[in-house]
Amino acid sequence: MYQVRTDLALEAREKFENDNVEVKGVKVKEEKPGKNMTVTKVMIETENGAKIMGKPRGNYITLEAPDMEDFDEDYHREISRQLAEILKELMPIEKKELSVLIVGLGNREVTPDALGPRVADNMMITRHIIRKFGKYAFGLKRNHQISSIVPGVMAQTGMETLEIIKGVLKETRPDYLIAIDALAARSTKRLNRTIQITDTGISPGSGVGNHRHALNEESVGIPVIAIGIPTVVDAVTIVSDTMNNLVSAMETTRRLEDIGKSISCLEEAEKYELIRELLSPNLNAMFVTPKDIDESVKRLSYTISEGINMAFFPM
Amino acid sequence: MYQVRTDLALEAREKFENDNVEVKGVKVKEEKPGKNMTVTKVMIETENGAKIMGKPRGNYITLEAPDMEDFDEDYHREISRQLAEILKELMPIEKKELSVLIVGLGNREVTPDALGPRVADNMMITRHIIRKFGKYAFGLKRNHQISSIVPGVMAQTGMETLEIIKGVLKETRPDYLIAIDALAARSTKRLNRTIQITDTGISPGSGVGNHRHALNEESVGIPVIAIGIPTVVDAVTIVSDTMNNLVSAMETTRRLEDIGKSISCLEEAEKYELIRELLSPNLNAMFVTPKDIDESVKRLSYTISEGINMAFFPM
Amino acid sequence: MYQVRTDLALEAREKFENDNVEVKGVKVKEEKPGKNMTVTKVMIETENGAKIMGKPRGNYITLEAPDMEDFDEDYHREISRQLAEILKELMPIEKKELSVLIVGLGNREVTPDALGPRVADNMMITRHIIRKFGKYAFGLKRNHQISSIVPGVMAQTGMETLEIIKGVLKETRPDYLIAIDALAARSTKRLNRTIQITDTGISPGSGVGNHRHALNEESVGIPVIAIGIPTVVDAVTIVSDTMNNLVSAMETTRRLEDIGKSISCLEEAEKYELIRELLSPNLNAMFVTPKDIDESVKRLSYTISEGINMAFFPM
Amino acid sequence: MYQVRTDLALEAREKFENDNVEVKGVKVKEEKPGKNMTVTKVMIETENGAKIMGKPRGNYITLEAPDMEDFDEDYHREISRQLAEILKELMPIEKKELSVLIVGLGNREVTPDALGPRVADNMMITRHIIRKFGKYAFGLKRNHQISSIVPGVMAQTGMETLEIIKGVLKETRPDYLIAIDALAARSTKRLNRTIQITDTGISPGSGVGNHRHALNEESVGIPVIAIGIPTVVDAVTIVSDTMNNLVSAMETTRRLEDIGKSISCLEEAEKYELIRELLSPNLNAMFVTPKDIDESVKRLSYTISEGINMAFFPM
Repeated sequence: MYQVRTDLALEAREKFENDNVEVKGVKVKEEKPGKNMTVTKVMIETENGAKIMGKPRGNYITLEAPDMEDFDEDYHREISRQLAEILKELMPIEKKELSVLIVGLGNREVTPDALGPRVADNMMITRHIIRKFGKYAFGLKRNHQISSIVPGVMAQTGMETLEIIKGVLKETRPDYLIAIDALAARSTKRLNRTIQITDTGISPGSGVGNHRHALNEESVGIPVIAIGIPTVVDAVTIVSDTMNNLVSAMETTRRLEDIGKSISCLEEAEKYELIRELLSPNLNAMFVTPKDIDESVKRLSYTISEGINMAFFPM
Repeated sequence: MYQVRTDLALEAREKFENDNVEVKGVKVKEEKPGKNMTVTKVMIETENGAKIMGKPRGNYITLEAPDMEDFDEDYHREISRQLAEILKELMPIEKKELSVLIVGLGNREVTPDALGPRVADNMMITRHIIRKFGKYAFGLKRNHQISSIVPGVMAQTGMETLEIIKGVLKETRPDYLIAIDALAARSTKRLNRTIQITDTGISPGSGVGNHRHALNEESVGIPVIAIGIPTVVDAVTIVSDTMNNLVSAMETTRRLEDIGKSISCLEEAEKYELIRELLSPNLNAMFVTPKDIDESVKRLSYTISEGINMAFFPM
Repeated sequence: MYQVRTDLALEAREKFENDNVEVKGVKVKEEKPGKNMTVTKVMIETENGAKIMGKPRGNYITLEAPDMEDFDEDYHREISRQLAEILKELMPIEKKELSVLIVGLGNREVTPDALGPRVADNMMITRHIIRKFGKYAFGLKRNHQISSIVPGVMAQTGMETLEIIKGVLKETRPDYLIAIDALAARSTKRLNRTIQITDTGISPGSGVGNHRHALNEESVGIPVIAIGIPTVVDAVTIVSDTMNNLVSAMETTRRLEDIGKSISCLEEAEKYELIRELLSPNLNAMFVTPKDIDESVKRLSYTISEGINMAFFPM
Repeated sequence: MYQVRTDLALEAREKFENDNVEVKGVKVKEEKPGKNMTVTKVMIETENGAKIMGKPRGNYITLEAPDMEDFDEDYHREISRQLAEILKELMPIEKKELSVLIVGLGNREVTPDALGPRVADNMMITRHIIRKFGKYAFGLKRNHQISSIVPGVMAQTGMETLEIIKGVLKETRPDYLIAIDALAARSTKRLNRTIQITDTGISPGSGVGNHRHALNEESVGIPVIAIGIPTVVDAVTIVSDTMNNLVSAMETTRRLEDIGKSISCLEEAEKYELIRELLSPNLNAMFVTPKDIDESVKRLSYTISEGINMAFFPM
């Protein structure tokens, strides 16, 4: 079976919904915690479910906020608050004092990929102060030790992100890792409007910059919470989607009827291969992103960092 | 006649070449000034030529350097040198002392659109020194007064770029304006490999950020030299190109023969409209760009600023 | 009379307080609008007062918030709110719809001087939207047209800041100009803790970067509100202050008594000249700033932009 | 014995020269490799020499280039070339293929401390390519594997720089580490004009940002070459120097004769203590830097990165 690339479990699931298929080993739960906000939990519970979904077992929580693109401070604060609640469900933040390393993945110099580094820039960092001045430095109920790193991308460092992170973990031994990353979505309508939080870490090949290695409990030895926002669509995906729309349209348009029928006889994979061959050879190394991506990344990185700060340091 | 968007005269011209049409009022001259480098001059000489090409009358000089993406300092210095030569042809740099305003168009915060601002950052600025300390401040043969501005984009300033530039021109009265801008190309294979220099200024709707107003001698009162490098392709163009490739492929592939025939019966404009309707509604506000655009923009902005510096201050 | 450089009217005034002198033509009023916050209004009402204070006639309102350096969001929101109130006193924001140009003065590339540009980056810009979509684009009670510009510094542009601003004003004709600038204080203890708002604009020679020309109603033709935060102390001032402390100490220290007496016999101006001669020649082009200036500028620029946004667009 | 802070061995040595003292265990050699350029080697050979100089045993090579502040490309290329030669003396670059980690120390967000990060940004990174495509990827005589990291500062990461670097070293096991850092000088006249290269690594307390831990062969297990440029002077130093100048001046000025005599009776340490007490309490956390530090850091970071690139990849 062919799979157009998406980093969102929600989109992977939707595919089957469209086909009216129930996927065994995958549960879905939807909530509306606020006006104009949807939280969907996709729980992949069995290996079979994981195989079908093309994603590892675990919890994928998606916060959809269609107006996230607008400048409305109260709405953004509410998103931050929801994000904080989700993080508190996935980690024992309210049960004990944790040491947490925040990892801002991505390339600071490429606007849609700068989300992770920018979130890291806005974190409330406490580890060095608590280690120097003791637990009561802040006078909080729980003194979580927060540290953060922006490892950069391989073209800048010559090292795998995983090498850098594993090294830092060995030296500083936190309890949890939270990785923030810009994702690739299947559809432009999700861009900058969706936050995915998962306890399965980062899969190989996900993110705007295509990490080669997984960043998860198996690879680094501690639980990895990943927070992602789709900021780009693969260029190949855009073209492929249009083709599919075209075929659908043809099937219902008299004049194009015959064409449509013939194309729709092609297998999915055949169609995909056809498109891939026809694409200009560089298109695999390209992404599609909105022209005002600077504004979106600026606002969203602030909303996410606020959410994480709220989870650990409630005011 | 429908026109897929390109800011490059070379690409506009190529369209007709493919059709084996000679365009009246348009002359083309090609040179190979160095290994792996082509300079093409498209001279649009009549109103008729301008109409057919969809570009104003004037000279469009394109420097193609296929290895511009590589890191080879000598090659880049040679590109800078060629750029300097072209500028000296278009402006009386070696005949008299000029006062020139360099305008770095585009949005500094969006990587592929940051080319103009970054070139401006690297300019050798002399106006304030010559005005303060006199002509002999630098002891050069010709003491050109160079100033520069990065006007930002409308979403940041609330003002048209043209308003800002006209204001600055009124106060400082330079002889020439050089505008540097990131462009949209028709084909991904031109990205970051082509420099277009023209004496017709910037047309409305060109550039990554879609300027609403023309920036040319007519609108600002002094000659405007524009230097552009294509760093993005419109998302719509990518899809449209693939469709065309598909149709060509179909016409020659047995199995898809009938489909191909039917689609190729559609008029160009019909096909384009069809695609446009099928595209997701946001795609117009999106662009396609390479994942390593940060490296390209960094290197190219340096190559261009060096070229301009060489033109005015030969060492 | 010699004057060590300060951009703060409050500090200019204090000098005389220390000497127990009442300055004719200068009124001072102090308020405590909140916990840990002082608002002082220095009104220079006559030419004589202006001469003595070394500052033009007008209102100088200083908001002192000693904990501004701390990270306390509620405290910062309260500072923003106070700033909004002060702006509403100085401009008819609640009486009519205004067109206002925000000018972010200073050098974005030098951390303590980046305050103005960063405030401009965070402004809610509305002019282009209201002009395009009409008064009801935002559905607010008053639709103020906000635009903004970051003119850069002379070493970057080759132009006087005043030339750029005058040009932009001629083209866009706003009613008011708000200039934000990083200031030089007399004392390190004021750094990053004080906001000065004045209706007299920017004086020549003020700011971290030493603007050569005044930016005020006289020079630009519309009222200029200036918002400044001291982020540096002149290097010369630091040395001079220490000398004065030394002398005071000497006068009361037995062992150094004689020395102290002799030095204190020197006239103020003589002492200043003496110091100036002894200083290394470059010191005039240097400033003193805290090592964590990056954090302060980041936080303060946000607090100020929030204050301005609140003044024009109350939520 | 009291020591005003300097990170430059040259300045530590000069102190004794002024006193006409020969320091045992310390050798000094001076060369003039080019017009307007001096290379001084201070070799601290014994523990005694180390104690007196306040610096660990090893080689300290200082490249002084008084015109480094000017914009002269040829001069800067010559400085890069000299730096490359010095690096080739300190490391077996021409004897075998090395794996080298470049560490850009300092705070990217504070202009004078951004030198290290900016040098790292411009490095030619090869490790990932050689590891993926093999030794002959570049077709060079020696395929050195260069990687780089910008660890940030403790306020940003919550971690000691040393923790991050040790972790990365454990995972990637390079042969050498090159650390680039902005330094504090004793005198403003050295700022941005001097490059110190040493094989002793970074001492605790050096650099603009005051690293707490040493970064040297002892602490990290591989040889550490440090490259530093002084970009700031400690605020305390500036004041102290002026005081000393004052005293000298007094001793030779009739009118102030008596004062001078009395002050000069004070011990060095007494004078220093006196000054320290009189300084405003925050001054320890402040630095002095030139107003045009942005231009200097931009240019110098390029000159240094070129030098390192030349050392490893001669063209």
